[in-house]
Amino acid sequence: MVDESSFRMEKDSLGHASVPKDAYYGIHTVRARDNFAVSGRPAHRRLMQAMVLVKKAAAKVNGEQGTIPESVAEAIERSCDDILKGMLDDHFIVDAYQGGAGTSTNMNVNEMIANRAIERLGGTKGDYRLVHPIDHVNLYQSTNDVYPTALRIAVIPLLRLLSDELSSLQESLQEKERQFADVLRLGRTQLMDALPILAGQSFGAYAKAVARDRWRLYKAEERLREINLGGTAVGTGMNAPLKYAYAVTEELREMTGLGLCRSDFPMDATQNMDVFVETSGLLKAAAVNLLKISGDFRLLGSGPQGGIGEYMLPAVQVGSSIMPGKVNPVIAEMAGSTSMRVIANDTAVTLAAASGQLELNAFTPLIAEALLESLELLSRAVPLFKERCVVGLTLDTARCGENLDRSGVMAAAAAAYLGYDTAAELASEATATGLPLEQVVRQRGLMTEEQIEAALHPLEVTKPGIPGSGRMV
Amino acid sequence: MVDESSFRMEKDSLGHASVPKDAYYGIHTVRARDNFAVSGRPAHRRLMQAMVLVKKAAAKVNGEQGTIPESVAEAIERSCDDILKGMLDDHFIVDAYQGGAGTSTNMNVNEMIANRAIERLGGTKGDYRLVHPIDHVNLYQSTNDVYPTALRIAVIPLLRLLSDELSSLQESLQEKERQFADVLRLGRTQLMDALPILAGQSFGAYAKAVARDRWRLYKAEERLREINLGGTAVGTGMNAPLKYAYAVTEELREMTGLGLCRSDFPMDATQNMDVFVETSGLLKAAAVNLLKISGDFRLLGSGPQGGIGEYMLPAVQVGSSIMPGKVNPVIAEMAGSTSMRVIANDTAVTLAAASGQLELNAFTPLIAEALLESLELLSRAVPLFKERCVVGLTLDTARCGENLDRSGVMAAAAAAYLGYDTAAELASEATATGLPLEQVVRQRGLMTEEQIEAALHPLEVTKPGIPGSGRMV
Amino acid sequence: MVDESSFRMEKDSLGHASVPKDAYYGIHTVRARDNFAVSGRPAHRRLMQAMVLVKKAAAKVNGEQGTIPESVAEAIERSCDDILKGMLDDHFIVDAYQGGAGTSTNMNVNEMIANRAIERLGGTKGDYRLVHPIDHVNLYQSTNDVYPTALRIAVIPLLRLLSDELSSLQESLQEKERQFADVLRLGRTQLMDALPILAGQSFGAYAKAVARDRWRLYKAEERLREINLGGTAVGTGMNAPLKYAYAVTEELREMTGLGLCRSDFPMDATQNMDVFVETSGLLKAAAVNLLKISGDFRLLGSGPQGGIGEYMLPAVQVGSSIMPGKVNPVIAEMAGSTSMRVIANDTAVTLAAASGQLELNAFTPLIAEALLESLELLSRAVPLFKERCVVGLTLDTARCGENLDRSGVMAAAAAAYLGYDTAAELASEATATGLPLEQVVRQRGLMTEEQIEAALHPLEVTKPGIPGSGRMV
Amino acid sequence: MVDESSFRMEKDSLGHASVPKDAYYGIHTVRARDNFAVSGRPAHRRLMQAMVLVKKAAAKVNGEQGTIPESVAEAIERSCDDILKGMLDDHFIVDAYQGGAGTSTNMNVNEMIANRAIERLGGTKGDYRLVHPIDHVNLYQSTNDVYPTALRIAVIPLLRLLSDELSSLQESLQEKERQFADVLRLGRTQLMDALPILAGQSFGAYAKAVARDRWRLYKAEERLREINLGGTAVGTGMNAPLKYAYAVTEELREMTGLGLCRSDFPMDATQNMDVFVETSGLLKAAAVNLLKISGDFRLLGSGPQGGIGEYMLPAVQVGSSIMPGKVNPVIAEMAGSTSMRVIANDTAVTLAAASGQLELNAFTPLIAEALLESLELLSRAVPLFKERCVVGLTLDTARCGENLDRSGVMAAAAAAYLGYDTAAELASEATATGLPLEQVVRQRGLMTEEQIEAALHPLEVTKPGIPGSGRMV
Repeated sequence: MVDESSFRMEKDSLGHASVPKDAYYGIHTVRARDNFAVSGRPAHRRLMQAMVLVKKAAAKVNGEQGTIPESVAEAIERSCDDILKGMLDDHFIVDAYQGGAGTSTNMNVNEMIANRAIERLGGTKGDYRLVHPIDHVNLYQSTNDVYPTALRIAVIPLLRLLSDELSSLQESLQEKERQFADVLRLGRTQLMDALPILAGQSFGAYAKAVARDRWRLYKAEERLREINLGGTAVGTGMNAPLKYAYAVTEELREMTGLGLCRSDFPMDATQNMDVFVETSGLLKAAAVNLLKISGDFRLLGSGPQGGIGEYMLPAVQVGSSIMPGKVNPVIAEMAGSTSMRVIANDTAVTLAAASGQLELNAFTPLIAEALLESLELLSRAVPLFKERCVVGLTLDTARCGENLDRSGVMAAAAAAYLGYDTAAELASEATATGLPLEQVVRQRGLMTEEQIEAALHPLEVTKPGIPGSGRMV
Repeated sequence: MVDESSFRMEKDSLGHASVPKDAYYGIHTVRARDNFAVSGRPAHRRLMQAMVLVKKAAAKVNGEQGTIPESVAEAIERSCDDILKGMLDDHFIVDAYQGGAGTSTNMNVNEMIANRAIERLGGTKGDYRLVHPIDHVNLYQSTNDVYPTALRIAVIPLLRLLSDELSSLQESLQEKERQFADVLRLGRTQLMDALPILAGQSFGAYAKAVARDRWRLYKAEERLREINLGGTAVGTGMNAPLKYAYAVTEELREMTGLGLCRSDFPMDATQNMDVFVETSGLLKAAAVNLLKISGDFRLLGSGPQGGIGEYMLPAVQVGSSIMPGKVNPVIAEMAGSTSMRVIANDTAVTLAAASGQLELNAFTPLIAEALLESLELLSRAVPLFKERCVVGLTLDTARCGENLDRSGVMAAAAAAYLGYDTAAELASEATATGLPLEQVVRQRGLMTEEQIEAALHPLEVTKPGIPGSGRMV
Repeated sequence: MVDESSFRMEKDSLGHASVPKDAYYGIHTVRARDNFAVSGRPAHRRLMQAMVLVKKAAAKVNGEQGTIPESVAEAIERSCDDILKGMLDDHFIVDAYQGGAGTSTNMNVNEMIANRAIERLGGTKGDYRLVHPIDHVNLYQSTNDVYPTALRIAVIPLLRLLSDELSSLQESLQEKERQFADVLRLGRTQLMDALPILAGQSFGAYAKAVARDRWRLYKAEERLREINLGGTAVGTGMNAPLKYAYAVTEELREMTGLGLCRSDFPMDATQNMDVFVETSGLLKAAAVNLLKISGDFRLLGSGPQGGIGEYMLPAVQVGSSIMPGKVNPVIAEMAGSTSMRVIANDTAVTLAAASGQLELNAFTPLIAEALLESLELLSRAVPLFKERCVVGLTLDTARCGENLDRSGVMAAAAAAYLGYDTAAELASEATATGLPLEQVVRQRGLMTEEQIEAALHPLEVTKPGIPGSGRMV
Repeated sequence: MVDESSFRMEKDSLGHASVPKDAYYGIHTVRARDNFAVSGRPAHRRLMQAMVLVKKAAAKVNGEQGTIPESVAEAIERSCDDILKGMLDDHFIVDAYQGGAGTSTNMNVNEMIANRAIERLGGTKGDYRLVHPIDHVNLYQSTNDVYPTALRIAVIPLLRLLSDELSSLQESLQEKERQFADVLRLGRTQLMDALPILAGQSFGAYAKAVARDRWRLYKAEERLREINLGGTAVGTGMNAPLKYAYAVTEELREMTGLGLCRSDFPMDATQNMDVFVETSGLLKAAAVNLLKISGDFRLLGSGPQGGIGEYMLPAVQVGSSIMPGKVNPVIAEMAGSTSMRVIANDTAVTLAAASGQLELNAFTPLIAEALLESLELLSRAVPLFKERCVVGLTLDTARCGENLDRSGVMAAAAAAYLGYDTAAELASEATATGLPLEQVVRQRGLMTEEQIEAALHPLEVTKPGIPGSGRMV
């Protein structure tokens, strides 16, 4: 039995519904909660907060322009601050996988702000005569301009954060490049023994890839800064005074410091979601790089005895409940796992964006959910990967040497002197006899000691040019 | 400043770490919490509970076989019950996107059970001499046999639940098939006016597709019932007595009632994840059907005035904060949105399963997360879709008639009498003049009144055969 | 300048177009060729052939039932035979990525057959009074029942072929299981040294996975056998006599030997494509297994000197144009590459199937293209993988032994006697000193010689139970 | 029985193989042909041609630098020209889904060029003493620097072509924006009647999205211009003189006119494929826009009588073999279909790029295949879509008016005057009675005639601000 005294009744055009008396949300939120009870998770917190920011800016402008009373505007703004401080987080209750292009999330926010403002003005929650969720809080707005704007406001700072974290990862990789600049290790193509490289060079190659990620994400921001606030329902701006539209954009630009500007064609941003597909696609590229790098770490750290064993990743936790002493590359795996999730989220963003129809995309909340999750996952996984895997990574130089020595790869250097076919024979012989290649060359008397010294030294072959040739530059 | 008195120190082979004094988890969990702080979400609750079930079965068997003291076994079993009741949910803290094949989740569970059992036996949390997370709780187990087993135990009931929900959806669609058995509406191919159909027939076609979904999911269970418990780390079963392996499988089969059986080759289930790819692929097929059906609902319900407007979906919430009176197909959209998420999750399952290497798949936690989310989303979205969208759906029969009348589709029926080319001409004329096709036929005197009556009546053309021909069966 | 004499004029309801005089196709095909000139590749040959089979069956039935003249039926059937022999392949010219649900492919076939039949009857191509592409060849058919039927007819034999190839692969893996039943090698979890296994056991695990693939594909056929032929445009069967519908299904069942049957609800198969999503999803599961197995081959064959080097894959081609003697695992890579393509094709099938609307799926040709490509790729890659990679695979047993010896994995066996913590210490010491674990145990006097012999022998630890315990069964 | 006289024997380090006497390819190609007989399609023609360009540049430089005889260099260059003219296309026979990172494609090209050059020098095919595929044609090269370089050379011009086609599409959309600037039509959000818009505005929104596509693709080129030629096998440049490396890049830059430059870290481009993931991701964004736009065309053109029917797409082919007079939106569907393929190809590119390991990505050929297909599909589909669907699109203005009139959307405008709740009541009444909203307002005497005129006129509501308010700017 429900205790009726702990509920209040609210009314909308469909009829009545009871709302918990303490709830800051109202009837629209209650209906949405019940309609979309699928994941049990509310919409992303950063999105909700960005929406509150938009509401605050709108209230400020409406107060200043006299379209709502100063006192109401003030109460709304303070209520927004309360919510931004996290005081009412439990009242964000609409499911992340809601139907509609965000209307229910918008109404959740509108109702929370209205009831908080009513409370601040000494009223009773639900008495919307004091502050009305639509007529005051949502004045001159539509879900369809508020939501895409808020999504951009939520995305940009995460993009910057991720960009910074990638920059920091890049630096730590470059530090490793320097640190391992003198250690030779075997290069491998198609996992098979190839030419010698310097261990540091690998990290340089990783750093280059990460630098590209950073650059791309940095540039994507340009297209995210254009907001359609003031466009209202279909982007024409109907019912929103132009004076308001300009002022609220300006206000929001100042509040956020994100360089926001008004789209010169708001209808575009209301219905086209390609900017988020682009952003998600770039996150996917970053995820691919992270998968590649972390996969290499796992390969080169494999064993340590019965695998390649050249990298020693920091031990961050005990690895096995059954095998004593086992330590696993769990940070690299976590980086891989989050990367796969980012790639999967890109599928969600793509599907949702492609499902837009006519003047609106009804699946924007799925885009928001997937994109914000990807951003947050990467912006947390990247520093963990850096701090707990890259920084403390060391080399088993003995193993590096051992693997290099027993491979026959110096044959490639010999080929420059002796031709491909002779070199191939030498490689076979070295493998068959277990002798180092240079010894086979010596036994056969095919090169002088000077040539061997100059050409078959591994350090020589990590540089451009014919080994031992004086580089022929 | 940390209040030291609120922490206890624990030790593992990597050193010491402080654990909140009240925590049921221990040092392994604390390290994992910090290593994998990426999504902020713990591993799926149903998976955790399934793991606790496995632990309970193992303790019972080990107690009975005398490999751990009866009192310890008893304390572990009761602790498992406590956790299954949800009493310790806040102590599941390892992130969903963890590295490793589930070791950290396994240790989180082991430590929670051990500390709860210690408490039950009157000891102090952290005093693992009483009950040890590994030597007692995890005895004869490895993450690598516990985790895939628990995942199967978590998946099967959700599969059955979803199967039931699909069955229920199928019935409601068939109910609509009967309800709308007499209402003619225009069929459309490639969105263009095609032949007349009965409104009920559409629902029959949907019901057929949903019936297939149900059947497939039902059959997938067969392959999920084989568990590798007793296989330990690599599937060979090393360190787990065969007596234990048989008994624990039997115990778990009884506890769960899921028809579990021991894999005849446990190494297979330890490293190969294709069964989950299969299951996720079938969920994807169901999602595709749900997308199709819900998309049709949205199309046929579009408008209602300026669109097709033949379906009237139940109004479940107010649609717009700016456009009074607008009601949107939010339940159908929610069904679409969750379907897209299921499709995206399939990407995650596929990537993770394809990334298995040698004797283990290190990305099993991602498979678990994505698969369980898909199952839960669908098993909740399907009944919501049924109850809030299908059951209350009505037809705007006037609109159905109007759309049918003004289309020229009866020309196809005429083609059987008059040939394709003449019929095409008549269709053009009907469109140009706005006259019903039969009137054009009449004006030109091309068919007798009897033929027109028999052949050009829409009901005739929803049945197999040449309209008006006496069916030529 | 176009030589006009080499063209003939044809006419349709949109006007005239010129068709190459020699062409068996006609105006509809010409328009489609120009409308869809995107990939430069025609629709899949197997699909085209399956459509011709359908046409042949329809002509036979129509001839027998007297709805077209016997001579015309006969000419159509012989023309179909000509095309099935591959004589007119160059005249399949409509692009694989065509708009429409296959109408253009259907018309391409209709026109080819008609013109070939006209020619056989002594007429001039384009003189459709003799044999008409629609009124004769396409009689009682619609693209919308012909196309999905043909797709099923094209898919099922490939499914059987693939199933056979998987069966053959399974056998060769089991042969390897037997062949390597006595060779110990190091097991690895998360790429790190784990417990010892028998090399043969790995192949047993692969064989189990492949056996599941085979079983699933075998079962999927059931749902593919239901055809909607006779359903015509929207599945109601309008304009197709029931007598015809039953007979043509029967005819086609006999011609193909595929166990085809008439759907009890043809409208379903016209609009719902989930059966192909299911099939593609199962192919994806097979691709995931192939990726896993071929990836393991590449890992275990890596080096050969500077990697793991335990597997020796057959050398099938020279590996490098710069590094003499290098041989790469190209067959395993090809298996991986085709698997990735199959996974990507699944995305196409899913997207296309989910884009169905109302009474038809307008993207069926994309489903056909992607699904048939996946089937063909796998059915060719699997035997190549078997014959050129599995059958000739040998072990470097010396390397297997070396890797196992230098790992510290026997510590896990010791743990059963000495406890986890002591075993962990021993493992550390063994790694630090480079001594075999059993020697460390001996030095410390922790186990008797008998215990060491019984418990620490690798063969023991590849079996279930506590090593050396008499198995405690 | 094979006619031995039509074959020649060739030899490599694995033994002998027979090659068709007329073949320009040699033993390496023959082995690869047999190893990778999976799709039956050769590697993409544009890639092969780009590789030939690289070979030509290398030969020129090597001739000039005296590392191969002038006559040989000259013969190689002329042979490259022959191949570029398409004379030897039938000799590109290695399958698109080959194992290895392109070695077989590289060898196919090397052998073709060598044999053609031998022929030009008067020798017999297979007599590699005259011109050697590796020692001459491939001198200072490795598959691993040639292939990624060639891929970039193949991609950039297609990117430019697509960019131009998108620009052209954008212009035609803007032309439509102007053309339809005065036609009011009903806006729809979530497919439900929303606010009025101008038909032209939709095209403006599409044009904005397409403009972004163009810009992004244009910018992606920057990162594609960096080539790793001279990096040889692992990117260190071993065995390639620096003098050669600089000169060949310069030569290739001039030959192609693509602004190519030498990567400052060639090892990066050898192993990291994120640039192609980025490019494919941007193509995906363009595909999403194309899906959205073409989907809107299909929706607004649906019917024409029993659907929305506001757009009239040009009739490009007859639509149905059973329904006379039916015309389908096949060009829009083709645009959708190719877009889906592009999205699916992105999955392939992502999987392949993420599967790179250590110093090389062994799945580069799959990246090449998928990416080039996507580029080619889009660069052909976009102009077809423009020319055959956009340019000739007209409006059914009567239908536009009818749909707008019978919707109740003017209520939103009334809300600005009368408040949300009153407006909602009016909307209900208008729908119930079938009367235009303004008449309901009039009957109730709620607004003056002036207000009605100013505020409820549809043209007013397509502009920003409160309708009838004098815009309050």
